[in-house]
Amino acid sequence: MKIGIDLGGTNLVVALCQESGELVTKQTVPTKIGDPEGLKADMKMLAKKVCDSKGISYKHVTSIGLGVPGSFVKETCTFEFATNLEMSNVCFADTFKPDFDVPVYLDNDANCAALGEALRGAGRGMRNVVMITLGTGVGGGIVIDGKLYTGSNNIAGEIGHMVIVAGGDQCNCGRRGCLERYCSANALVRMANEAMDGGAEESSLRALRDAKGKLYGKDICDARDAGDALADKAFDQYCDYLACGLANLINIMQPDCIVIGGGVSGYGEKLLAPVREKTAREQFKVGDKATPIMVATLGNDAGLIGAAMLNR
Amino acid sequence: MKIGIDLGGTNLVVALCQESGELVTKQTVPTKIGDPEGLKADMKMLAKKVCDSKGISYKHVTSIGLGVPGSFVKETCTFEFATNLEMSNVCFADTFKPDFDVPVYLDNDANCAALGEALRGAGRGMRNVVMITLGTGVGGGIVIDGKLYTGSNNIAGEIGHMVIVAGGDQCNCGRRGCLERYCSANALVRMANEAMDGGAEESSLRALRDAKGKLYGKDICDARDAGDALADKAFDQYCDYLACGLANLINIMQPDCIVIGGGVSGYGEKLLAPVREKTAREQFKVGDKATPIMVATLGNDAGLIGAAMLNR
Repeated sequence: MKIGIDLGGTNLVVALCQESGELVTKQTVPTKIGDPEGLKADMKMLAKKVCDSKGISYKHVTSIGLGVPGSFVKETCTFEFATNLEMSNVCFADTFKPDFDVPVYLDNDANCAALGEALRGAGRGMRNVVMITLGTGVGGGIVIDGKLYTGSNNIAGEIGHMVIVAGGDQCNCGRRGCLERYCSANALVRMANEAMDGGAEESSLRALRDAKGKLYGKDICDARDAGDALADKAFDQYCDYLACGLANLINIMQPDCIVIGGGVSGYGEKLLAPVREKTAREQFKVGDKATPIMVATLGNDAGLIGAAMLNR
Repeated sequence: MKIGIDLGGTNLVVALCQESGELVTKQTVPTKIGDPEGLKADMKMLAKKVCDSKGISYKHVTSIGLGVPGSFVKETCTFEFATNLEMSNVCFADTFKPDFDVPVYLDNDANCAALGEALRGAGRGMRNVVMITLGTGVGGGIVIDGKLYTGSNNIAGEIGHMVIVAGGDQCNCGRRGCLERYCSANALVRMANEAMDGGAEESSLRALRDAKGKLYGKDICDARDAGDALADKAFDQYCDYLACGLANLINIMQPDCIVIGGGVSGYGEKLLAPVREKTAREQFKVGDKATPIMVATLGNDAGLIGAAMLNR
């Protein structure tokens, strides 16, 4: 059995998984922000609790993996820093001893989600998988030959900070024109706002924006579903940029599949259909074998399962 | 010992290499265009000749690798098609039997060059290397953990067809704004031409263009060396785009180093200095550890050595 831990800014979740990655049970407590000793004690307590609840001896646990937000040093199993946890330089290597005398692995939460989806979710059975997460920002993770690829300094996979519009929109990372500026949920909202502000076209989104003060990605999707032409145009523009980014990733890496996660992926087939068609048109391929593009299937469990499956 | 073969549109080169990849000796004949049987006979003849010339028994050869232009099927060791060779569907699996009863591997020439540079050239000692070739077009190759990464359908590494200017210049591949349109040797010439045509600025390149009818990448570099301000501006613009592409590759893959080959790399440190500085500013890094960027060191031998080192 393996234990996977998702250290989030709100909740701490600990899961017991089969060696294959199948989730057996999980337990959640609120994350003790700014209290590293309390946090470690909670982790250990929950690790024991998930085993106890299934009558599993601690000796049958072979490894423990942690998905963390922010920066870390994999080699020493040390979490360095994340703004929303209000703690720094916390080493987890000995946290579970003596009850669990096993290796403790650590990686960032986006990478863990990618590994989980690649091994047990939408990418199951594939060797090389790229996951892209479309949320407030755009994140990613790369799995090669069934293992996380993290590159030099363990910071590979910053897919959102690939520039697709040289000299374009200013990104928080300092570059201009990053994919994140065109494919986050916020970007979809911006495109709708710009369309409204740049013209007089009628749209149900105008009244909604006035009423709510602010639009969300889902509002654009809902308006599009209801037949709103402006929402449809903004969404089409969003899909063009996303397909541009995906075709870039494919031309460089030719993964066996691309998995899309994050809030925007909740739009499901209505997102996938246009994105698949646009991407297939732009990507290098053999014959008509376009790279499969799927939505993530594990939801919040992806990071937990991926953390459990970390192995170096 | 290993044998590496570079099947080019002009010459066929066959090399004998140590198991480590060190080149021992090589022989060259003109490529028999449109004559697959003659080509195979030449390959075998040269393979025997390089061994004979060093008194190496054919039994001591452990593998043979071919770098080919155009499309191929790795699994069956079959070269499918390349315009400039005027032949199609040539299988090399049995070409060297019975004299050499060893596995025959095959990959594209750009990938072979990347593997050669990663193992024995500028990337020697590094695990993960991305090579980018700046010539008439922009090519590339990816080496992960000391092995070629070719992805699904063996067509990964099309770095030149990553869009960096969405909706930009039309590329031959069908996309718009590909790196190849901004970072090939031709792109550098185009930037100088556009600067001349778009303004009245004085430049030694005007007279040169009138005299030669057409400029080449080296002309822009030479003019810049001689203090030509317009050439310097065009070159600076070229370096901006190249740094954009390299920072994209780094943010996605975080290789241990990037190796630059192809004609433009002949400009050496004068290319590297600005590109390193611009790339370091844009890439994700830990502290100030920017990704090393080097020029290729093996020249035309890179593909030969890489072919010899193919192993799957």
